[in-house]
Amino acid sequence: MGFLININDKEFFKKLNNENVRPIADEIRRFLVDNVIKSGGHLASNLGVVELTLAMYKVFDFPKDKIVFDVGHQSYVHKILSGRADNFSTLRKHDGLSGFPKRSESPYDSFNTGHSSTSLSAALGIAKARDLNGDDYNVIAFIGDGALGGGMAFEALNDSGAGETKLIIVLNDNEMSINKNVGGLSSHLSMLRLSKKYINVKDKVNRFFNKFGKPGQTISKFVKKMKRAIKFATINTPVFEELGLTYIGLIDGHNIDDLTVAFEKAKSTDGPVLIHVVTKKGCGYEPAERNPDIYHGIPPHFNPENVNNNITYTSVFGDYITRKAESNKKISVITAAMTSGCGLNLFASKFPDRFFDVGIAEEHAVTLAAGLACENIIPVFSVYSTFLQRGYDQILHDVCIQNLHVVFSIDRAGVVGEDGETHQGLFDLSYLTHIPNMTVLAPATQKEFEQMMDYAIDKCEGPVAVRFPKAKINNTNNSDFEISKIETINSTGNNVVIFSVGRMLDLANEVFEKLNAENISSTLCNVRTIKPVNTDELNNYLSKCTLAVTIEDNVISGGAGQYLCNTANREHRSKFIHFGFPDSFVEHGSQIELMKKYGLSAENIISNIKKELMN
Amino acid sequence: MGFLININDKEFFKKLNNENVRPIADEIRRFLVDNVIKSGGHLASNLGVVELTLAMYKVFDFPKDKIVFDVGHQSYVHKILSGRADNFSTLRKHDGLSGFPKRSESPYDSFNTGHSSTSLSAALGIAKARDLNGDDYNVIAFIGDGALGGGMAFEALNDSGAGETKLIIVLNDNEMSINKNVGGLSSHLSMLRLSKKYINVKDKVNRFFNKFGKPGQTISKFVKKMKRAIKFATINTPVFEELGLTYIGLIDGHNIDDLTVAFEKAKSTDGPVLIHVVTKKGCGYEPAERNPDIYHGIPPHFNPENVNNNITYTSVFGDYITRKAESNKKISVITAAMTSGCGLNLFASKFPDRFFDVGIAEEHAVTLAAGLACENIIPVFSVYSTFLQRGYDQILHDVCIQNLHVVFSIDRAGVVGEDGETHQGLFDLSYLTHIPNMTVLAPATQKEFEQMMDYAIDKCEGPVAVRFPKAKINNTNNSDFEISKIETINSTGNNVVIFSVGRMLDLANEVFEKLNAENISSTLCNVRTIKPVNTDELNNYLSKCTLAVTIEDNVISGGAGQYLCNTANREHRSKFIHFGFPDSFVEHGSQIELMKKYGLSAENIISNIKKELMN
Repeated sequence: MGFLININDKEFFKKLNNENVRPIADEIRRFLVDNVIKSGGHLASNLGVVELTLAMYKVFDFPKDKIVFDVGHQSYVHKILSGRADNFSTLRKHDGLSGFPKRSESPYDSFNTGHSSTSLSAALGIAKARDLNGDDYNVIAFIGDGALGGGMAFEALNDSGAGETKLIIVLNDNEMSINKNVGGLSSHLSMLRLSKKYINVKDKVNRFFNKFGKPGQTISKFVKKMKRAIKFATINTPVFEELGLTYIGLIDGHNIDDLTVAFEKAKSTDGPVLIHVVTKKGCGYEPAERNPDIYHGIPPHFNPENVNNNITYTSVFGDYITRKAESNKKISVITAAMTSGCGLNLFASKFPDRFFDVGIAEEHAVTLAAGLACENIIPVFSVYSTFLQRGYDQILHDVCIQNLHVVFSIDRAGVVGEDGETHQGLFDLSYLTHIPNMTVLAPATQKEFEQMMDYAIDKCEGPVAVRFPKAKINNTNNSDFEISKIETINSTGNNVVIFSVGRMLDLANEVFEKLNAENISSTLCNVRTIKPVNTDELNNYLSKCTLAVTIEDNVISGGAGQYLCNTANREHRSKFIHFGFPDSFVEHGSQIELMKKYGLSAENIISNIKKELMN
Repeated sequence: MGFLININDKEFFKKLNNENVRPIADEIRRFLVDNVIKSGGHLASNLGVVELTLAMYKVFDFPKDKIVFDVGHQSYVHKILSGRADNFSTLRKHDGLSGFPKRSESPYDSFNTGHSSTSLSAALGIAKARDLNGDDYNVIAFIGDGALGGGMAFEALNDSGAGETKLIIVLNDNEMSINKNVGGLSSHLSMLRLSKKYINVKDKVNRFFNKFGKPGQTISKFVKKMKRAIKFATINTPVFEELGLTYIGLIDGHNIDDLTVAFEKAKSTDGPVLIHVVTKKGCGYEPAERNPDIYHGIPPHFNPENVNNNITYTSVFGDYITRKAESNKKISVITAAMTSGCGLNLFASKFPDRFFDVGIAEEHAVTLAAGLACENIIPVFSVYSTFLQRGYDQILHDVCIQNLHVVFSIDRAGVVGEDGETHQGLFDLSYLTHIPNMTVLAPATQKEFEQMMDYAIDKCEGPVAVRFPKAKINNTNNSDFEISKIETINSTGNNVVIFSVGRMLDLANEVFEKLNAENISSTLCNVRTIKPVNTDELNNYLSKCTLAVTIEDNVISGGAGQYLCNTANREHRSKFIHFGFPDSFVEHGSQIELMKKYGLSAENIISNIKKELMN
């Protein structure tokens, strides 16, 4: 792989231009396709930024200059160019390369990312620190058009635009977040894209007026005014200029010469600059160009002919909610740019009037739901556990204080695997159970998942969350769901009561069977309702047992196990031992590896139970 | 009070105009000043919206039409006009009128508010529900220029602008949030304010072109295009139009005739409309006009000559951080529009280069801090407990995953009193302790507060929060603070160990003294470090005692008491009884009333201890 030889050769990057870039870009694209098809990961977004990343390496001096990638899944080319190509076969594997930028992985990664819309704030912080420290380097925030619609990106734009801090924002506009983009900002960007004359006109104007005056001369103010007047007559002002940023655009993101000019210009401009670059997602790999959403994130050994048809919690939810909405006309569904991820394609096409994709805007999504609920609509916000963290205040302040009937369908709860720290859904039980008025449910089978959703939609009168994992669903025909009722699945006696939370039932069952084989009598329970607990029933279980074991895929701290323990009569609290994730962040790896590593295996649980019983 | 007679008389409002409004507006202002000076509350913002609120009551048909007030402290005139003037003497008192809109208080209050920037999402939700339900009424979001800078307001603007949902946004632009506004958006609004010609020009253009064509006719597209061209030649496009909203402005917010025209126009416009209204904060009351920030929120029986000079946690923090920053040049301070509230006026004037007021943008503030911390600056984010809820995801995802040294100085933790449900700082211990890498401290005295801050700034290497109440500070000279070390304040034996959290020490001491008087031996401990706990030390305390009592001003669920209990060896867990706030939202009232009501009194705690000891 020829290009790998040259990555530490800064002169190599400096010589790149439109004439010689093609074979290098092709090689990087081949490398990406070969590796990501095998390892799984984000493909289309990385194929789109090959020339753009090369151009940044040409103009900037990394790692002295610092780049913050928003979300971060478009950082693979950057990882290749910063010396990590050799490790690419370990991408997203446990102990291997992370699929996102990670400070601990490389000095070229300036800030860990994963959630959307954080890069501008982080980069502005780094830039302000640079100035306070009296240092001199460039700070670049690299953000997609989808992420730019997130509220905190706007807060950071607003703050940047008000100040003088030098900061370079690269807007990678590929007209996509994961699905097609939505929102007024998106239309605005389309409008800018349509007016391609902009930069040419501006340049001509510049050349003309530069004859008259240079910055610092008295005439320059007049020149500036005239330039603005001419610009206004040509196209709408980009929103960014209104907010106080210098706008450079449009730039063809696959033209390294144009990119070079734009970056050099940005380097020599004072204050905050935004470079508007247009790229094509999936560029150079025909299947990904045709279907950028399918090739956004792909599983290992991806074969588009052989798409995974497992029945998962997600697919069950998608089918359920579409069916349910036919009979219940009050249901509407909200997504924050996750239509496919949440299994909502069918719903979206069948009920477009009752389907609201608000873009990457979880805060707005939650309070929009609160507004809908005020007027007798039943909003179902379908969202990943990790992304709902961004709506914590809105859940508490806008939904729960008013005790509004909003349904949270929380996908990707628990350990998610390959995406790592930033995407694990390990906190939702902790951040939801302490909020007053909240009902929290966790299904273990398809039957009870659908019954819980029925309860959440038809019977519950306040806020309710149903949290479920990224996993195949169990289709055992267990007993009917009843709110706050713990299900007894099996029992050989009361030495140990096993309280299993949601998907952990398979593991709990394995523990139950093995205890049985060792003649330790036990009762296997499916908790189902995390909150509210029927304390009489709980205490009844506890009064009979020696040991109460809780198993959950959440952090133990503030999770379901501790919630049960804290709710029980105090004389029973000593009986609890908790299994779940520890008080540390859980890295990437397969779900099975991570569960095992953190003690969620029958062997570990049983050995602990035996130790405690002997005490 | 003449105006009170007419509030149910819709014709009364319809007849209002510039000629007859003055005596009515004057009367409302007198009523506001008289009442709010006595009861305490928000004055300046309400004085500024008298004519604006009257004009809305003239044009709209409340409560059929629905209004959502952002933040909500500017809803007093609305409360008066909707029949609540008689109860104004109970404003912000326990069981009295709330200082914010409250659905349970009146059908005229469509949505509870308190935190900033929620109104557009809520109103859009209500408007979408209206359309789904086939109803017909107007929905108005009433938002200040400060709140508009919050990220979720942008998310909602972005979503509104993309759709066709009819929604009326009233932008109450008084150039202030609580302190002077900041940000690029703010400059943009100033620019719009300076170009007063705008609406006139537009109107002239309208009149001219309306001769040629009306909407629906083929010529209208051309007309629209020409109008835009002329507008561009006149002033910058308001950001709102770029985002897809119809913009009506500028409107003089004290001119009821102009306001009437604008509202009527908005009513007859399809899709989302933003009306840009300029008002004067404090209008009509000279002291408030001169010092709108002093008169933003005032305490009961306010006398500007006799400002409260109590030494509070807030004032101690302000003095401390200013002093500390002289010797430690790495410190910078971030506020989200709360310079005075957080006691930072002195710091801001002394260290303008190291002081970042980011506007109402807590999410951005947290991640900005993370960026600063990456490059060796020590950022101190000074913020109210309730508002930090909005940064939960950023604390977890941007600060704690990277284990960055960010100091959170959390003011208004615990019960805050008169502001009620939306402002109580009762959740921070629950939402912080379950996040890995987080250190959480709660001071009980001035000495340990300053020593904790020293620890947080000088010694701690990761994220650290110091949470303290809105209260006078105790200046007892207790022992030196040591991380994770529980302080024994006093002991008569080990029957009961009292673990006191932060400001609860006075109450805990009262409990200790009274137990002593009743010959129940006890040990009084000041917990100080909520997390991380020294488990050996904790277990040592527990192994000696019969009962462990925790007292805190946080919800019990997930709070400090449960954290201690969950951290202790399991055989000790049964010894714990917890005092704090229950799993429900705590309404407004004085701090003392609320503590008492929810069992935080010596009598209640002692009676419970005795009951448990007898078990």
